Amino acid sequence: MTVNYPDGRQFLRKPDDQLQSNIKPHHRDSVIFGGRGMSLEETINTSNDYYRIQNKAVIYKKPTPIQIVKVDYPQRSQAVIREAYFRNASTTDYNGVYQGYYLDFEAKETTNKASFPLKNFHQHQVDHFQNCLAQQGICFTIMRFSSLERYFVTPASLLINYWSQQSQGRKSIPLKTIIETGYEVKAGFRPALDYLEAVDQLIAKTNLKNLGENHGSK
Amino acid sequence: MTVNYPDGRQFLRKPDDQLQSNIKPHHRDSVIFGGRGMSLEETINTSNDYYRIQNKAVIYKKPTPIQIVKVDYPQRSQAVIREAYFRNASTTDYNGVYQGYYLDFEAKETTNKASFPLKNFHQHQVDHFQNCLAQQGICFTIMRFSSLERYFVTPASLLINYWSQQSQGRKSIPLKTIIETGYEVKAGFRPALDYLEAVDQLIAKTNLKNLGENHGSK
Repeated sequence: MTVNYPDGRQFLRKPDDQLQSNIKPHHRDSVIFGGRGMSLEETINTSNDYYRIQNKAVIYKKPTPIQIVKVDYPQRSQAVIREAYFRNASTTDYNGVYQGYYLDFEAKETTNKASFPLKNFHQHQVDHFQNCLAQQGICFTIMRFSSLERYFVTPASLLINYWSQQSQGRKSIPLKTIIETGYEVKAGFRPALDYLEAVDQLIAKTNLKNLGENHGSK
Repeated sequence: MTVNYPDGRQFLRKPDDQLQSNIKPHHRDSVIFGGRGMSLEETINTSNDYYRIQNKAVIYKKPTPIQIVKVDYPQRSQAVIREAYFRNASTTDYNGVYQGYYLDFEAKETTNKASFPLKNFHQHQVDHFQNCLAQQGICFTIMRFSSLERYFVTPASLLINYWSQQSQGRKSIPLKTIIETGYEVKAGFRPALDYLEAVDQLIAKTNLKNLGENHGSK
């Protein structure tokens, strides 16, 4: 059953007996939470709002960088930008702070069922991840397999590793590898996608790894 | 002597014998580094570029948030935004990662000589600082006294403290207090403003304070 919302969004609703999660979708303002019906960006943004309100983390999507050329200032009205151009981004889309850690991530989705295409990413994002990892930032990607409605938080090192293999013809990251290396997150409600639960595991693993390296060098 | 640049910027140049710094300004592309002649924003942005190239920190200014309403896609030309509006910002202007720390700051300037006006700041910036401090972010303001050509990195707690005093008529932060509580930074070259040197001191002081609090609670 397809629900058509006034703003053009569509929602494909499964009959209740086929819902995968034991959390019933919650209806609010004709938007169904729980990941289904919201775009990946909306899902993450509402989760970030929830984290902020709960004083759990302060994470925002970066605004799209633009070059403003002309602005009109009509009388008794707000300023209107009349000519502007999209600038090339230098960073990833999301960053923030969580328990003292710098978090930095990119969120992408695919309709593929067995692998995640590398063409969804861009060189500047990979470069940015490398720079942030060098500064001990916690860097990851949120990958959504929309046909499977499965979400994974994967360490940025996985993307960096497979990205460098493009020269050998590598085109995507297998789902199997993402399951092994990443942390699955279930869509839900409040927050719509509790990705920080996966980030906790990523941080714990990163800290263990750093401890091990420190011991090895003594 | 006033130098007029083609893009409208002006530079008031002192005779060489009055230059305050022992670092000679370096001329490059008709922009004089060393803090003099560049806006505060340019000074910080070029410093951030330097830090990034030197693999010292990854810090960026956040793009201005805008709401895009109309975009034209002319043939064989790049997309042009034809109607957009400035959105209210929710955060401060700058953030990034430095040696594992989340850094978050706002940069402001005044022509005043004895105090820094609170009206240069906004409630959402103060709120954002409080949220980030609660997550153990390293938060500060870069304050430039342009008539004195002096720069200070001050802990965000100073702004938060004085901000709350506005209800009692407080209008500004005295320079004396900024000198006592903050860390002065000299404008220079590569980077134009080495504010991270001051941030190192802020981090050290923050860590000492946290250690003291941990001991006190045992």
